Amino acid sequence: MRVLGVDPGLTRCGVGVVEGVAGRPLRMIGVGVVRTPADAETARRLVAVEEGIERWLDEYRPEFVAVERVFSQHNVRTVMGTAQASAVAMLCAARRGLPVALHTPSEVKAAVTGSGRADKAQVGAMVTRLLRLDAPPKPADAADALALAICHIWRAPATDRLQRAVAAQRIRTTKGSTA
Amino acid sequence: MRVLGVDPGLTRCGVGVVEGVAGRPLRMIGVGVVRTPADAETARRLVAVEEGIERWLDEYRPEFVAVERVFSQHNVRTVMGTAQASAVAMLCAARRGLPVALHTPSEVKAAVTGSGRADKAQVGAMVTRLLRLDAPPKPADAADALALAICHIWRAPATDRLQRAVAAQRIRTTKGSTA
Repeated sequence: MRVLGVDPGLTRCGVGVVEGVAGRPLRMIGVGVVRTPADAETARRLVAVEEGIERWLDEYRPEFVAVERVFSQHNVRTVMGTAQASAVAMLCAARRGLPVALHTPSEVKAAVTGSGRADKAQVGAMVTRLLRLDAPPKPADAADALALAICHIWRAPATDRLQRAVAAQRIRTTKGSTA
Repeated sequence: MRVLGVDPGLTRCGVGVVEGVAGRPLRMIGVGVVRTPADAETARRLVAVEEGIERWLDEYRPEFVAVERVFSQHNVRTVMGTAQASAVAMLCAARRGLPVALHTPSEVKAAVTGSGRADKAQVGAMVTRLLRLDAPPKPADAADALALAICHIWRAPATDRLQRAVAAQRIRTTKGSTA
């Protein structure tokens, strides 16, 4: 499976594409950052984020998009921009019919380092090792985007089983009510 | 000037179009609500908000879009949805080259009622009076969207003067530095 990870942000939106399946070595297909000028109006910055994400979707054709789930316990100004950029990323993916998964920062950290409280350096080091890169991707947002994609590939089997179970249950319930 | 006001939300996104200029009676052109199902995934809901806003832009061709500025001091779950819906509204407008203005809830209340602390009923009553409607628009999100549009029409002359002054200052500064 090929996954685009998005670490949303208005100033720097990390993007990383990883290919692989759980239990097998993973491969980095692409990594980068979508930037928008800090002095531009928010609406114009959101258009720039959309254009950037669209380019990544066009070029790398991922089958899944994993976006960092935004919480609002952080800095007020930052979290608004993050929520808005994540909305644009989700919109671009869902408009194309791509499944969108949200993973929390601690789920991502726990997936790649074993600890939900790992720091940036540790996440960067593990991303480098897992994807067999020469050096940690810079900036940290790019490394985080790759970590999100890895997290999704590793968590997906469990999520898929759950989604299939829910779907099967729905079918049984429907059959029961129409019988 | 014709303004589309947007009171952003994932469950109910209020939309209202008002035409007029400051100091003259205003006219309501349209009012409504874009709804998305609460049980759908956030990404799908954002696509539905986009489709709804696009329909309103296509049908009413506003020259300006006024969106409520979102703060994060409210409920955590709600504010994320509001920030995401507002991002989609801003994106739709900016993509068409329409100017987007953000007004805070207290600016809107102060504009239509004279008090930044007015309650929903008071805002609804003033919107009804100012637009010469038979009854307050329902739900409150629709009335709030109209209030946003009215606020924008009344504040715009000041904002425009300010923007022109800033632009003139920039030109002077540039001329000064290149002279």
